[in-house]
Amino acid sequence: MNKTWLLPWWRDLDRLTAGRDLVAGLVIAAMLVPQGMAYAALAGLPPQVGLYASLLPPAAYALFGTSRYLAVGPVAVVSLMVATATAALSQRHGVDPVSTAASLALVSGALLMLMGILRLGFLTHFLSRPVLTGFLSAAAVLIAVSQLPQILDIRVEASDPVTVLSTVAGQLEQINPWTVGTALATILVIRWVNGPVGRFLSRANLGLGVLVGRMGALVALVLAIVLASLTGLSDQLPQIGEIPAALPRPSLPPLDTAWLLELGGAALLISLVGFMESVSVGRALAAREGESIRPDRELLGLGAANLAAGLTSAYPVTGGLSRSIVAADAGARTPLAGVFAAIFVLLVLLLATPLLEALPRAVLAGIVLLAVVQLISPREWRTIWIQDRRDGMVLVLTALAVLLVGVEAGLVAGIAASILVLLWRVSRPHVAVVGRIAGTEHFRNRERHEVEELPGVRMVRVDESLQFPNSRFLRDTLVQAGSEPGIRDVVLIASAVNDVDATALEALEEAIDTLNGRGVRLHLAEVKGPVMDRLERVGLPERLHPGEIFLSTHDAARSLGSRMRHVHE
Amino acid sequence: MNKTWLLPWWRDLDRLTAGRDLVAGLVIAAMLVPQGMAYAALAGLPPQVGLYASLLPPAAYALFGTSRYLAVGPVAVVSLMVATATAALSQRHGVDPVSTAASLALVSGALLMLMGILRLGFLTHFLSRPVLTGFLSAAAVLIAVSQLPQILDIRVEASDPVTVLSTVAGQLEQINPWTVGTALATILVIRWVNGPVGRFLSRANLGLGVLVGRMGALVALVLAIVLASLTGLSDQLPQIGEIPAALPRPSLPPLDTAWLLELGGAALLISLVGFMESVSVGRALAAREGESIRPDRELLGLGAANLAAGLTSAYPVTGGLSRSIVAADAGARTPLAGVFAAIFVLLVLLLATPLLEALPRAVLAGIVLLAVVQLISPREWRTIWIQDRRDGMVLVLTALAVLLVGVEAGLVAGIAASILVLLWRVSRPHVAVVGRIAGTEHFRNRERHEVEELPGVRMVRVDESLQFPNSRFLRDTLVQAGSEPGIRDVVLIASAVNDVDATALEALEEAIDTLNGRGVRLHLAEVKGPVMDRLERVGLPERLHPGEIFLSTHDAARSLGSRMRHVHE
Repeated sequence: MNKTWLLPWWRDLDRLTAGRDLVAGLVIAAMLVPQGMAYAALAGLPPQVGLYASLLPPAAYALFGTSRYLAVGPVAVVSLMVATATAALSQRHGVDPVSTAASLALVSGALLMLMGILRLGFLTHFLSRPVLTGFLSAAAVLIAVSQLPQILDIRVEASDPVTVLSTVAGQLEQINPWTVGTALATILVIRWVNGPVGRFLSRANLGLGVLVGRMGALVALVLAIVLASLTGLSDQLPQIGEIPAALPRPSLPPLDTAWLLELGGAALLISLVGFMESVSVGRALAAREGESIRPDRELLGLGAANLAAGLTSAYPVTGGLSRSIVAADAGARTPLAGVFAAIFVLLVLLLATPLLEALPRAVLAGIVLLAVVQLISPREWRTIWIQDRRDGMVLVLTALAVLLVGVEAGLVAGIAASILVLLWRVSRPHVAVVGRIAGTEHFRNRERHEVEELPGVRMVRVDESLQFPNSRFLRDTLVQAGSEPGIRDVVLIASAVNDVDATALEALEEAIDTLNGRGVRLHLAEVKGPVMDRLERVGLPERLHPGEIFLSTHDAARSLGSRMRHVHE
Repeated sequence: MNKTWLLPWWRDLDRLTAGRDLVAGLVIAAMLVPQGMAYAALAGLPPQVGLYASLLPPAAYALFGTSRYLAVGPVAVVSLMVATATAALSQRHGVDPVSTAASLALVSGALLMLMGILRLGFLTHFLSRPVLTGFLSAAAVLIAVSQLPQILDIRVEASDPVTVLSTVAGQLEQINPWTVGTALATILVIRWVNGPVGRFLSRANLGLGVLVGRMGALVALVLAIVLASLTGLSDQLPQIGEIPAALPRPSLPPLDTAWLLELGGAALLISLVGFMESVSVGRALAAREGESIRPDRELLGLGAANLAAGLTSAYPVTGGLSRSIVAADAGARTPLAGVFAAIFVLLVLLLATPLLEALPRAVLAGIVLLAVVQLISPREWRTIWIQDRRDGMVLVLTALAVLLVGVEAGLVAGIAASILVLLWRVSRPHVAVVGRIAGTEHFRNRERHEVEELPGVRMVRVDESLQFPNSRFLRDTLVQAGSEPGIRDVVLIASAVNDVDATALEALEEAIDTLNGRGVRLHLAEVKGPVMDRLERVGLPERLHPGEIFLSTHDAARSLGSRMRHVHE
């Protein structure tokens, strides 16, 4: 078997890298335990599901994945999408949320594998940068709102943001100061440990900076458990409650066809978003060392990870940003780091769950809140808006649709909007009427240069491939050019035309007919080879007659110019 | 009021043209009466609805329409779409089919008007030529199948083609030879009158050729009524039955919001298809005289026609191909011809309905069958397939989807497929590695010309605007170009790049980072003005450093070449 196919990182492995991976695995696990439980809560699932999602999936990813650093496991945005999907699906079909989430992982995994095998990685093209930016920002806001009930200790039955906010607003007097304080303290501890403490240890060169400086969440978690247990505060703070000290049982979620089809849409969106997040993280980290990753292989890796999640009562996973950066900084060299992390999580699951049961829920809410803030990037909004107003509008529309209509519908609306913008742009290509720069063979836009035009001849350059969205525009442009008084010849300069589809060909024929009806000839110039093949196959050169096809604009000008003189003489 | 806005054809009117329009109106009416009843039956509506649809709508079209010849009224494909939509909607909401069809006309009319006012004529871009061709062919097959029960006199409850065919196949022994004979006789009479008889009269120069040569359907209809009455064959042939000898009562169909929204999707598709048919007919006829029509005005005209249909218990209308050609050939000069035709239909409705009631249904089926055959154009299939394989596949897919899944879903699938093909094409632009043709300043594709390349420099020309579908391809192409051994500089020649969106910009930045990480510089050359503005706004020139932006490929080659020599010296 080809080593680069399965376990592609194996050849890089030696004792040194394995040691570095072990350390990195410890750091990742220190983040995975609190984050896993927090994200599972966000997804509306019991805390151990988040830990299960950190066990087998990283190992499964390691089978095919090509990123050295990618830490695969539960992430915030996918958890939000799972929460939305399971809420709707579980209710409609009477399936419990844990099984629904596992089914989602299974279908996602199958879809990702399939996309990898069919090399459909290009499907992620549909998630353009403005759509992704708008989606992530709005998702972050939704996640933050969803944590309010935990932080304020106010019971809200529904999960849609408007109901949550209005319920909370109506019960402000019932806010529990202890949960609010706990969440704030959690955030402060994490920022303090990951910030000043980490920097101090790094500067003191104790070799612990990297390790401790990423353990803020773990420190907060341990502190909270210890303090809550010692001070009797546990009465004031809702706790996680029972976590079974057991490994996930391998099990197949319900698998009838109707059910899987019903899951399909949500699973596809989860797959796309998860893959995009994973690939952009993996690519950014690889670029730091001038390396690159192979997206179609990443599809297989993530597909395997999600299949593993689906078979072990876990829920959809992907490569997360924060843990991956930490893994890279902590010196991970191969996906073995993720495997080591999984082993540490396993130990926690087997030995430490009784301790974790005393953890106040508000701590998890604090961890989530801090994590999602990084998803909102005002700088990215500004860059996109400055660079391209249309992309800016797609961004705003996506964000608003996600906030107001919902996570899935909003994402689909954003994708549709970005495709519409593209079609709109293709439908109105740039067109220049060109003339010759005196004394040269160069032909340029007459609005930008001092050019001379032949009397009776109009030369039009269309800067776009001729395709169905612009076929009407093409016909109107040519007919328009031939409608000005005195014009006898119209030359279409096709130097920027890389393709002609059937609809554009029909439009071209209609333009020929209309122009001929008015006694105007249509000519072509600078037709590229493949386009010419296509035109010849359907007999366009004959249709053009008495119009001609010239090799270059210069040829067209010379030929039409001499004919003109001939007429005048 | 500006004359060219309302009644745009008014200024062309004088006694002569009015006279010609009167004759043309008579010819159109002679087709409208049988076709109107036949298409109404196809739409699953009583025969008089087809006549109602020929009264006010042509007059309403004349208010805004810009085509001289367009004969607005019931057409086959729209009737099929109405049949599909009303079958589903009437059943689900318990509204009778006549009201449902009128509601569809009303909503279609409003949508068309709205599209006209907002100048959304470009929406029809989405119906590309292969989609329209595949759709019309498949619709013709569906229509032909739907006429089988009438022709064979076999009762079929369902309307989906598979059930119709299987029911018919199971009851072949019950075929009524009289109805089959009547349908065949109808087809033969029409072809004989419109063919040999018309040609003979034309050649004999009796001035009647044009008139009689288009009245085949009318002749068949009159013959059938006379023969059936005289011979007592009416017992063997199911007849149309009662037609109220009354004008349609102006009435508003049911108008609650939920109902209108429910209609919206079907009405939109009917509007788009109707508009496309109408515009292509109008455009083809106008082109014959070197004229053109104004699509946004056509939207208003058709919108008014459908609003009129909706308010007079009729059903959706559009400009039909066969009647429009006939109108043009019969000498119609203005839409007044349609108004005259409406007056003749009115007379039929008031005076002749008792006669029509004896008409065998099989005659109408014969008329429909003959009309839809022209919708299937093997030549068009061949042209599209030869010219562009991808378009050919969209065509086949659309036709299959319409046949197997349904009229509306099939059309939507076709539109989606053509957009996917476009995105796919944009996602893999043509890329050329270029070099200098020795002794010149010209740079050309190294695979097509004998060129010389600078050592250590790779020049890549991407022949497409840089947008989200090709951003990943762009990044991979650039990174790839910089990965070959010995390459220190990569030049992206942007001569064919008319636009850069935010996603492509991000890809460009990622390529810069990856290449810089490997000690390779990325340069740009031949960046167009508007693209350069965009790149400068987000600081790309600084990001490029130490890469540069060259005015021309020649400049890039000179500068990088001299640097290279400097290094070597």
